[in-house]
Amino acid sequence: MSIILGANQYGKAENRLVRIYRETARHEIRDVTVSTALRGDFAAAHLEGDQGKVLPTDTQKNTAYAFAKEHGLRAIEDYALTLARHFVDDVEPVHGARIAVDEFAWDRVPVGGEGHDHTWVRRGPEVRTTEVDVSAEGTEVVSGLRDLVLLKSTGSEFHGFLTDRYTTLPETDDRIMATALVARWRYSELDVDWDKTWVDARRILLEKFATVHSLALQQTLWEMGRGVLEAHPAIAEIRLQAPNKHHFAVDLSPFGLDNPNEVFYAADRPYGLIEATVTRS
Amino acid sequence: MSIILGANQYGKAENRLVRIYRETARHEIRDVTVSTALRGDFAAAHLEGDQGKVLPTDTQKNTAYAFAKEHGLRAIEDYALTLARHFVDDVEPVHGARIAVDEFAWDRVPVGGEGHDHTWVRRGPEVRTTEVDVSAEGTEVVSGLRDLVLLKSTGSEFHGFLTDRYTTLPETDDRIMATALVARWRYSELDVDWDKTWVDARRILLEKFATVHSLALQQTLWEMGRGVLEAHPAIAEIRLQAPNKHHFAVDLSPFGLDNPNEVFYAADRPYGLIEATVTRS
Amino acid sequence: MSIILGANQYGKAENRLVRIYRETARHEIRDVTVSTALRGDFAAAHLEGDQGKVLPTDTQKNTAYAFAKEHGLRAIEDYALTLARHFVDDVEPVHGARIAVDEFAWDRVPVGGEGHDHTWVRRGPEVRTTEVDVSAEGTEVVSGLRDLVLLKSTGSEFHGFLTDRYTTLPETDDRIMATALVARWRYSELDVDWDKTWVDARRILLEKFATVHSLALQQTLWEMGRGVLEAHPAIAEIRLQAPNKHHFAVDLSPFGLDNPNEVFYAADRPYGLIEATVTRS
Amino acid sequence: MSIILGANQYGKAENRLVRIYRETARHEIRDVTVSTALRGDFAAAHLEGDQGKVLPTDTQKNTAYAFAKEHGLRAIEDYALTLARHFVDDVEPVHGARIAVDEFAWDRVPVGGEGHDHTWVRRGPEVRTTEVDVSAEGTEVVSGLRDLVLLKSTGSEFHGFLTDRYTTLPETDDRIMATALVARWRYSELDVDWDKTWVDARRILLEKFATVHSLALQQTLWEMGRGVLEAHPAIAEIRLQAPNKHHFAVDLSPFGLDNPNEVFYAADRPYGLIEATVTRS
Repeated sequence: MSIILGANQYGKAENRLVRIYRETARHEIRDVTVSTALRGDFAAAHLEGDQGKVLPTDTQKNTAYAFAKEHGLRAIEDYALTLARHFVDDVEPVHGARIAVDEFAWDRVPVGGEGHDHTWVRRGPEVRTTEVDVSAEGTEVVSGLRDLVLLKSTGSEFHGFLTDRYTTLPETDDRIMATALVARWRYSELDVDWDKTWVDARRILLEKFATVHSLALQQTLWEMGRGVLEAHPAIAEIRLQAPNKHHFAVDLSPFGLDNPNEVFYAADRPYGLIEATVTRS
Repeated sequence: MSIILGANQYGKAENRLVRIYRETARHEIRDVTVSTALRGDFAAAHLEGDQGKVLPTDTQKNTAYAFAKEHGLRAIEDYALTLARHFVDDVEPVHGARIAVDEFAWDRVPVGGEGHDHTWVRRGPEVRTTEVDVSAEGTEVVSGLRDLVLLKSTGSEFHGFLTDRYTTLPETDDRIMATALVARWRYSELDVDWDKTWVDARRILLEKFATVHSLALQQTLWEMGRGVLEAHPAIAEIRLQAPNKHHFAVDLSPFGLDNPNEVFYAADRPYGLIEATVTRS
Repeated sequence: MSIILGANQYGKAENRLVRIYRETARHEIRDVTVSTALRGDFAAAHLEGDQGKVLPTDTQKNTAYAFAKEHGLRAIEDYALTLARHFVDDVEPVHGARIAVDEFAWDRVPVGGEGHDHTWVRRGPEVRTTEVDVSAEGTEVVSGLRDLVLLKSTGSEFHGFLTDRYTTLPETDDRIMATALVARWRYSELDVDWDKTWVDARRILLEKFATVHSLALQQTLWEMGRGVLEAHPAIAEIRLQAPNKHHFAVDLSPFGLDNPNEVFYAADRPYGLIEATVTRS
Repeated sequence: MSIILGANQYGKAENRLVRIYRETARHEIRDVTVSTALRGDFAAAHLEGDQGKVLPTDTQKNTAYAFAKEHGLRAIEDYALTLARHFVDDVEPVHGARIAVDEFAWDRVPVGGEGHDHTWVRRGPEVRTTEVDVSAEGTEVVSGLRDLVLLKSTGSEFHGFLTDRYTTLPETDDRIMATALVARWRYSELDVDWDKTWVDARRILLEKFATVHSLALQQTLWEMGRGVLEAHPAIAEIRLQAPNKHHFAVDLSPFGLDNPNEVFYAADRPYGLIEATVTRS
């Protein structure tokens, strides 16, 4: 038995890139963080320190910036696909490329009731995401969002759960449910209106979170995922990660006060973490 | 010359508190972080370890939560004033109290075109702030905001500056100007509609940032501050801290591409930091 | 084709736990963050909101704390294995458990040349890690570290690399190489002296980083991984993730100064990211 | 009454700078973050957008890097003083300069029992700090540290405190006391061995934290500060900020276990925050 090099990849992570469209006085903005990672025939770099097949990460960075001009940057999925295909098609030792893009949203600053032409204020903390992977095995696009912070102040129960000798949690039929959602959905096709689909998937996630009367965060996630898949045949699967950001009703009885779910302590850690995939059979 | 105890204070920092109003099916939410700090006759605690005059920080925390029920939590300035006055008036060894409150904004989740009754999504990353100080010397209210992230893609110049042997910066008549604003304004009176004033001061800051043609961030800050003071006689002074979040136009000429302020590298560090106070004579 | 529930798990993340051993006046400390995640027969919780098979995450938290007393907390691998086996063996609907533990190191405070009995100062920022997975498919232990920040000021070259039309990087035969290492090694057996092996694997990683004359970070990682596998037959595989934390020699020539690799700008983002697995054939 | 410009300053914040000394094969490293802020005759920049008296923040950055070569970077106080005096003495519109330096510590990587010549591992998370202010009013040097994380597992009590109707805290005669100390001491003279004094002040802070039997964090801070002032006549005053990082003994009685201060939950927020100045009369 001998020691060998296994899976490996390399790239440039977290290139901060802002693209302004200024063909007219009414500018447009795309604000992204791009990470590239290449797979291929790089054994000599590891085993012998021979860089002859290694395109520097600095070059990958340059390419990310140049492509925002050469090929534009509108839907992050299109941009990432173009970049990934370039590395696989044009750089000989590269067999696979994975491009991850985070996009940060901006609203136009309101001036006199209208959005300003070239001034924006950051919406947030939510981030739109995509991860694109291109190789001989195929092309995969996984889009989604993270840090979508949601809270409902009623319409959430938690009872009838399994207990053992370590269980002290009381049952409740009314609690705050809050999360910072991560959603990642995989497309089964590439002929998709990326922006429109993203906006609608997000709308469904929000609406389901709001309108499902929840018996557990698990149930809410299932309904959120199911809602997205029902509406979007181009989406094969969705993965949801949802921290249960606990809000504990404070016991005010020592001070002669009742607290019918009005005053809460919002805890940082620990938090529940519920992860579920909704897919097609 | 002898060694003595100088200025000191103590309190409970960063109490995370969510207050839900649920008198009707249409709930209201206030989400805050509260920090308390007390000054007074605490020398014995330091010099001898005698806690007889020390109200525990745990009690301060309890009080912050209890007051959100007993006295309510609407405008953070009112809440902080009530809390500060309680410590100074009702706890004998306490001579001064400083209460800092950060407030996090939530939007109602849109469902079928309308905001949901009891489900919210975090707006952000902006934070509304207040710091209230109550003592025999008087009552001070300093309100404001932080992490208001702004960017304009044109209408900003920077030239004609002083140079010395360490200067290499070229002049520019068109650049991105971006910041994450901190603004803190001190009120000269207490009979103020806190929420309404805050909303309007924020509106002015945004509008001035958008509409002032900028020859430097210093000039923009001055106009922002002046705008707030002109509109609000109850505000005595405003302090602005603005990191100059540099966006560098990427040199694409090695790749045969021009870049007329379309593709930028958004730098993290270092950043310019401009600080200015606008006050009344 | 229908929509179905796919892979799912749930647990309590980031339980902050400190365990003091105080049998003698010379205390011992273990400071960890524990995350639990359970897999099993939880479909009803998602599809119907029926919690009958769901052991609350609150109970998982209680169990993590109770086990630190009942079964002790010394090597984090032993603690995690005991906790994982409990969930799988004792909680009927649970088919698999994954326990992740981060450990934070403390040094005794030196007093008069000796380490104090019960007072410590945080070493850091490095974190020792383990992830244990127990299910019918077997038991897996992956241990390692993260945030091990390393820098060498010479003995690192980078040249002879592949170029294309987007390449502008000059070659160098002397540069700073710096990283914040993440290493994760999988054990092929369970009868291991976890603490001793961890200390020695870390020693090898450090020594190889220092002594390998580097032609690329890829080569250094390979030698680091190979060194660990050569010395430790119980380790089947090691995965290394190494950001290339760029330190750019500042061009001081505009100021009439040369800079023979003495003054550097340490960049935050972007950074190279090199990932490699060293395994056995 | 008219609206006027008040106090203002500007500069370049968080310049990340690494200085390598490589005169011999045994290199030395200094790793710092430098922030500059200038005060002076800058009204025209604010009021009229005239930059004629404004030395760009980019030039300040260049100067910080150039000075690390021209004047060296050993003790951060010397470096900061040299930089501050340059701005005040050599740049005509500048009347005052404030330079803040954070220094990050590195240990040599041990190889075969000895520290390596040119490879280091980050010690941490502690940071050494200085803030230097130079103006016509004089020169001030305030040095210190932050993020010095300390914990003692016994030797700390808290009882006999003031109570009111919001008090629920039980008294304790044995608890964990932990903090992340910020200490800032002001020198009364400039002819000081900065490195030696810093090392010794830190030693005293650690030893006092360890050896003082604590009746409250206030008392411990007082003794820490007093110890530093007694040993160092060149230090006029020391300010200490100490979060009380609460470690709560977990109630294991529901599980039939006792917990004589062995298993703790380490809370993030809220935390006590004790601030005290020790000075000379």
